[in-house]
Amino acid sequence: MGVPRKKWSKFTGWYENLLIDAGIYDHRYPLKGAGVWMPYGYQIREKVYGYLKKLHHKNNYYEVLFPTLIPEDLFKKESEHVASFEKEVFWVTRGGAKELQKKYVLRPTSETAMYHMFSLWAKSYTDLPIKIFQVVSVFRYETKATHPLYREREVTTFFESHCAFSTKEENEKEVKMAVEMYKNLFDWLGIPYLLSKRPDWDKFPGAEYTIAFDAIMPNGRTLQIGTVHNLGQNFAKAFEIIVDMPDGSRDYVHQMCFGVSGRVITAIMATHGDDHGLVLLPEISPIDAVIVPIIYKEKEKEILEASRKVKELLESEGFKVILDDTDDTPGSKFYKWELKGVPIRIEIGPRDVENETVTLVRRDTLEKESVKLSECLDEFKDLRVKITEDLKKRAREFFESKIEEADTIEQVKKIVNEGKVAIVDWCGEESCAAEIEEETGLTLLGIKLKENGEHEKPKKLKCVNCGKESKYRLIISKSY
Amino acid sequence: MGVPRKKWSKFTGWYENLLIDAGIYDHRYPLKGAGVWMPYGYQIREKVYGYLKKLHHKNNYYEVLFPTLIPEDLFKKESEHVASFEKEVFWVTRGGAKELQKKYVLRPTSETAMYHMFSLWAKSYTDLPIKIFQVVSVFRYETKATHPLYREREVTTFFESHCAFSTKEENEKEVKMAVEMYKNLFDWLGIPYLLSKRPDWDKFPGAEYTIAFDAIMPNGRTLQIGTVHNLGQNFAKAFEIIVDMPDGSRDYVHQMCFGVSGRVITAIMATHGDDHGLVLLPEISPIDAVIVPIIYKEKEKEILEASRKVKELLESEGFKVILDDTDDTPGSKFYKWELKGVPIRIEIGPRDVENETVTLVRRDTLEKESVKLSECLDEFKDLRVKITEDLKKRAREFFESKIEEADTIEQVKKIVNEGKVAIVDWCGEESCAAEIEEETGLTLLGIKLKENGEHEKPKKLKCVNCGKESKYRLIISKSY
Repeated sequence: MGVPRKKWSKFTGWYENLLIDAGIYDHRYPLKGAGVWMPYGYQIREKVYGYLKKLHHKNNYYEVLFPTLIPEDLFKKESEHVASFEKEVFWVTRGGAKELQKKYVLRPTSETAMYHMFSLWAKSYTDLPIKIFQVVSVFRYETKATHPLYREREVTTFFESHCAFSTKEENEKEVKMAVEMYKNLFDWLGIPYLLSKRPDWDKFPGAEYTIAFDAIMPNGRTLQIGTVHNLGQNFAKAFEIIVDMPDGSRDYVHQMCFGVSGRVITAIMATHGDDHGLVLLPEISPIDAVIVPIIYKEKEKEILEASRKVKELLESEGFKVILDDTDDTPGSKFYKWELKGVPIRIEIGPRDVENETVTLVRRDTLEKESVKLSECLDEFKDLRVKITEDLKKRAREFFESKIEEADTIEQVKKIVNEGKVAIVDWCGEESCAAEIEEETGLTLLGIKLKENGEHEKPKKLKCVNCGKESKYRLIISKSY
Repeated sequence: MGVPRKKWSKFTGWYENLLIDAGIYDHRYPLKGAGVWMPYGYQIREKVYGYLKKLHHKNNYYEVLFPTLIPEDLFKKESEHVASFEKEVFWVTRGGAKELQKKYVLRPTSETAMYHMFSLWAKSYTDLPIKIFQVVSVFRYETKATHPLYREREVTTFFESHCAFSTKEENEKEVKMAVEMYKNLFDWLGIPYLLSKRPDWDKFPGAEYTIAFDAIMPNGRTLQIGTVHNLGQNFAKAFEIIVDMPDGSRDYVHQMCFGVSGRVITAIMATHGDDHGLVLLPEISPIDAVIVPIIYKEKEKEILEASRKVKELLESEGFKVILDDTDDTPGSKFYKWELKGVPIRIEIGPRDVENETVTLVRRDTLEKESVKLSECLDEFKDLRVKITEDLKKRAREFFESKIEEADTIEQVKKIVNEGKVAIVDWCGEESCAAEIEEETGLTLLGIKLKENGEHEKPKKLKCVNCGKESKYRLIISKSY
């Protein structure tokens, strides 16, 4: 796209151009809020979701695949759910030239499709637990501005997990387990997050409560990147998922579900990227290293020979390595591979050949280091670890610099205006929350949670709005 | 479902019950022509598509993901294509309560979505070739009877591959390569196939020609399981995919595409299954072996101990093993795992413990064999190879018994009535073909091809219908 890369001053432009320029996601597809996963982006997506799938398998989840189409009557079974989603679902009303007698909804999420089948699968407590997940497209009729990967009409990267248990306790335990799985994922990706319980008026429609993960973007706005919902028995009642219990009684199952989407990719880009483009943690980079031979005519053969040897050496250890021996200038090669976020560049020039060295260049800091050829593999491996550590540390520092306590509504406004997230004490009254939203025009993300899932204790002991005794810490931000 | 399994006398019932009973695909989803991939079925699907993905990667294809929704104007760009698909696409016409100003089609296949993007990606011959694939749901408004996995409204398992080249020769070469890839896949799966060039009136809409793979079902009906299309420059013209050529001229790209679907799973079941249920080649079985301890009270501990040891032994070699130590009777365990097609059952009883032996039972023949514990691993590995060989051989013999030459139209009818496929000589005239179809009420699958893709030479030298000189061998069948 050729636009200057300014992550900090022009985040949205930086992000949208980079998606295309780095070969991640082409949002020029001629349909509002839909785009194309390009080969490089798809590989990153596979690395990220591959890890999350492993976590699921380890916890005895099974992958499945449900239809995209949901018949109208199924969709309308759970009343809170349908009331909330009805305005934003797409309807399939015609087949060929004919009006369909039974209309279909394009799934906005899969509860209603899945839970009817749960009622066929679960007849006795011995059929439980059901623990499944799928990776699919979901659809929302967004009428406002859409944004690639984080606000779309077709969300092509929804990873949704659904469970049913015979007891409330197991269900609660799984909610905690799901939170742990997402913590594990985001920690692995080096994406710091705010953990909160969404306010009651903002929970998932049909849920008892919702726990959410939000990342902080370079401009200080928050982006919801994962949610976990305790559904209690609400859907079980609507879909009649009833099982025989060990004591001979019959009861509705207890359910929970959780999901992440392409927003994880947005958060990766926003958290680690810089003005040169993408920066990828070695763990998720489709390419581990690019070798750029710095060719001088008289040494061309030796330089290429050395480059190939280094390539073979790294490949023998299972690394994916590109030897860029095209006719482009070294400078344009640097530009290209920096843009794509390849974690380590290896430069090999005439002096390297003479001295039996190679030059390692870290993508994150762009620092160069000359290492002995004989130690190159070990140094390469060490550097990968160092890059991961440093990227995570940098991300954590930035994240912490973006959160500030506020004692007054005026301070909240000021903090958020400065591109940060505000934390306040709150009495817990919905009316008070409504006044804060009204007064600030901001989003009350939710009640801040500690790592262990408990509510964080209020610090100031009085509500930022009414001054009465405070119960919770509330996160206030400008959110996407 | 509890219905007797009669593959040969009641194929459709056998198949539809088995899909659910073996945990492959639940077609009780309350929408005509849609179903749910269950965990076990999904794992088989992953094995099969994992192999096909490897073949693609080896041939430098990249995975991508395009939207499900196609804007009306894109969909209507290629005239033959739209004329054919228009009657059988689903239309998304409403968002929430609003009529959409721009309607969307649910992709029936992805040419029209992809090739618009190709026109953005390919500006010069140096941007070529483009070689991509994706695994997605596609949608057809089937008005006739639907059948799980082989005739659906939502085909959840479409594996489609698309290419663009700067020269006709490369494109032709890739058509041959695609045919080779599918041969490789079907040979690996032990599914014998008829290879044919579809008649002109039955080729893919917008293609120059279509090469198809058809399997033969137990009842003698043919099932199309894969197609390869040479699209020439037809779509390139409609979508204006024009590139600068090395000589400075500009030209439309040359394109081809190919696809397989869930029908591959149908063919696997139909080809290898039996009255006991599924039979899986070891290569695609999610479970390599099930161990059933035959427990007698006095030896319970030793038998379970021995069972666990065998499990560990096999797992140390990377095999997936289930030790079924539930309270069910051995008989019901046999029934359950035979139904799921697990290739090898290992029985360990009191005598085995005494003699340091185990009993291996092949799923394909149900033959038992007692082997020394010390040789168990080698015997197990050998047996896997033997099962694969024998299943392929059995499938090949059945396939060949189902094909018969016919000299007259009467013979064609008789052969097909007996549940077989007829091969005739044909002059090549469309009018003659139309008369044959009219007279027999059967499908002319196409012109039979040799392994190398060339037309098979006619044997009888005169057309089965008009008696004039024959040019081709024609395949006639009752097709699904």
